[in-house]
Amino acid sequence: MSSVSVPRNAKPRLAITVGDVAGVGPEVALKAAMEPEITHRCQPILVGPANAIGEIASRLKLSLPPMIDASAAIEGLGPTREMAGLVDVGPVALDTLVPGTFSSQTGRASFDAVDWAIRETMAGRFDAIVTGPIQKEAWHEAGTGYLGHTELLADRTATPDVSMMLTGPEVSSVLCTIHLPLADAIEALTIELIERAIRLGGAAMETRHGRAPRITVLGLNPHAGESGLLSRGEEDALIVPAIERVRQSKYANDRGWQIVGPVPPDTAFTPAMRRQTDVHVCMYHDQGLIPLKALSFDDAVNVTLGLPIVRTSVDHGTALDLAWQGVANHSSMRAAIEMAIDLCGVKS
Amino acid sequence: MSSVSVPRNAKPRLAITVGDVAGVGPEVALKAAMEPEITHRCQPILVGPANAIGEIASRLKLSLPPMIDASAAIEGLGPTREMAGLVDVGPVALDTLVPGTFSSQTGRASFDAVDWAIRETMAGRFDAIVTGPIQKEAWHEAGTGYLGHTELLADRTATPDVSMMLTGPEVSSVLCTIHLPLADAIEALTIELIERAIRLGGAAMETRHGRAPRITVLGLNPHAGESGLLSRGEEDALIVPAIERVRQSKYANDRGWQIVGPVPPDTAFTPAMRRQTDVHVCMYHDQGLIPLKALSFDDAVNVTLGLPIVRTSVDHGTALDLAWQGVANHSSMRAAIEMAIDLCGVKS
Repeated sequence: MSSVSVPRNAKPRLAITVGDVAGVGPEVALKAAMEPEITHRCQPILVGPANAIGEIASRLKLSLPPMIDASAAIEGLGPTREMAGLVDVGPVALDTLVPGTFSSQTGRASFDAVDWAIRETMAGRFDAIVTGPIQKEAWHEAGTGYLGHTELLADRTATPDVSMMLTGPEVSSVLCTIHLPLADAIEALTIELIERAIRLGGAAMETRHGRAPRITVLGLNPHAGESGLLSRGEEDALIVPAIERVRQSKYANDRGWQIVGPVPPDTAFTPAMRRQTDVHVCMYHDQGLIPLKALSFDDAVNVTLGLPIVRTSVDHGTALDLAWQGVANHSSMRAAIEMAIDLCGVKS
Repeated sequence: MSSVSVPRNAKPRLAITVGDVAGVGPEVALKAAMEPEITHRCQPILVGPANAIGEIASRLKLSLPPMIDASAAIEGLGPTREMAGLVDVGPVALDTLVPGTFSSQTGRASFDAVDWAIRETMAGRFDAIVTGPIQKEAWHEAGTGYLGHTELLADRTATPDVSMMLTGPEVSSVLCTIHLPLADAIEALTIELIERAIRLGGAAMETRHGRAPRITVLGLNPHAGESGLLSRGEEDALIVPAIERVRQSKYANDRGWQIVGPVPPDTAFTPAMRRQTDVHVCMYHDQGLIPLKALSFDDAVNVTLGLPIVRTSVDHGTALDLAWQGVANHSSMRAAIEMAIDLCGVKS
C-alpha cells in the first residue's frame, strides 16, 4: 500500500496530527498515543502546535511525549523506535486561545501539521498518517486554499481519485460515491468508480489481514434489482461488469480474491454475511454508513484508499462543546491508529 | 387500530394462516402457536388445509390443535378463549403433495386460507391476522387473480393505501416507498406518502406501547442534505412539511407525539438514537431494512399499517428447500404473533 522506507515487521512510525487545538483532537490523540497497547505496536509521533498541546496535557493531567525537532531530528528518532514523540509545527498564541473557539490561527496550525505530515510521509520518514479532527471553517479563515484533508492529500500526493473506507469492529464499507445528493449519487455511478472501490477495498483488506480478501459488492436497488424488476438496470450495466473486471484481472485472480455480488443490500449486513465478508463495497454514503454506525459508533475509522501513503482518520469532528474537559472518548483515535498499523502490513 | 369485537384486556383471538403447505409455513405456525407463552397471551387459530397440516404435524411430531368447523363454530369457541384451534379451508390431495414443490393446489389452499381469515376478521370474529409465507407463483398458477397478500388485503378491505412496517427487537422501520428502483423511489416521494407513514407508524407504536410514540423521521440524502448542500431539496420540500403536518394535527398534538427529523440517515440507528425512538420513518426500502436486518435477522416481522384490521406476517419466504424437515426457525412467526397481540392493544 505505502511507499514505506521501513522494513516489514519493524514497528511502524506514525505521524498523528492532533487536529484543531480548539477541539477534542489533542486530548484524544494524547490519550490514545500514550496507551501501552499502542506504543507497543508503533512509534506514535504527535504533530501540532506544541505549546497548545502542552497546555492541554497539563490541564487534563495527561502524559506529554518528548519534543522532537521537526526540521532535523526525525531521522535521528533511533532505530529502536521505542519512543513516542511530539513534533512542533509552530506555536499558537495561548492568551487568545479559547477552548471550543476555533480561529484562523487554530486553522493555520492544524493545516501546517497535516501539510508537514504528508510531506514527511511522502518522503518515507513515516509509515502512515493518522489525522485528528480539524475544523474546515478554520482552514477557510486561515486562507489555506483547501477545503479539508481530502483535498490537501489529493493535491500533495497528486492523487485525484481516492476512495473512502469506513471501518468499525463489525463492518468495513468502501463507498463508490460519497457526499452527493442521493439522486446525484445514482447518476454518478460508473463501472470505473465501482471497480476502483472493489480493487482498493480488496487491496486494503489483503494488507490488513495478510490473506486473500473476501469482498461483498452491494446492489444499488432493493433486492439488488430482483432480476431487473426493481432496477433501472444499474446492477447489470454497472455493478456486474465492475465485478467481472476485477475478477478477471490477473492480480485478483492470482491471489484468490473472493468477490460476491451484487447482493441485496438489506441482507448484506446480516451476521452471517458479515462473517463471510472483509469489506462491503457500497454504492452510496448511507448504504455503507447506516449499518456501520448502527453496529459501532464510537470506534469507527475513516480510511483514504488509493493514496501512495497510508492515511487513517478519526470518524468524528472537533466536538467543540467538549473541548479541554477530559471527557472526550478516544476510541475512534485508538482505532484509527490500530488501523494504520494494520494497513502498514506489519504483523505484531 | 382494529375493528375488534373483543373487550380490551381479553385475550385476543388470532387467525394464523399457515401459508403454502409445500413450504415451512405450517411447521413454523405449529411450533409458534403451541408455545405456552403464546397460548397464554392469545387464542391462536391456525387456518389452512387441515389434512396437509395434520400430515406435517404427524411427520414432525408436533402437537396439532383441535379442529374447528369453519362455517359454524367460530362463534362457539368459547368465552374463556383458552384453546388453540385449527380451521380447515378444504383438503389438498396428499398423494400428489411433495414437500418443497408448490402447485396450483397449494396456491389455491393458501389463498383460500387468507381470504377466509380476512373475511372473518373484517366481520369481527378475529382480532388480528398473522400470515405465514405464501408462494406468489402458486397463487398465479391457481388463477387467484392476486399478486400476493398485500393486493388481496387492499381489495377485500377497500384500502388501497397502506404502509409497510418492519420490526425487529432493535428497530421498527416504516417505509414511505417499498419495491421500487431506488431512482424511482426518490421521484415517488410526496408529502402525503411521508405524512401517512409518520401517522401510521406513530399510531401503531402508540397502541403497542400504550403511550405517546417517539418517532424519528430520516432524511433522504447524506447528512439529511446538510442544509441543502447535499440535497436536491427533498428534505425541505417534502420531509419537513410532512413532519409539520403531523405535528400540527390535533390528534398528534393532543397526545404528545414526539417527532424528530429529518435526521441524518447514518446516525439515525446508533444505539443512542435507537433508545430514543419507537419507530423510524424511512424514505426507501434499504434505508429501513439494512439496519433492521443488520441488528436482527431471524425474528423480524412485517406489519401492514393502514388497514381496518391488524395484520402481521413472517418476514421470510416459504424456504422450500427446508420444507417438512423440522429444522425451520419459527422466531419470525413467534414475533409476528406477539406483534399482532401488541397491536390489538391488549396488555397482558
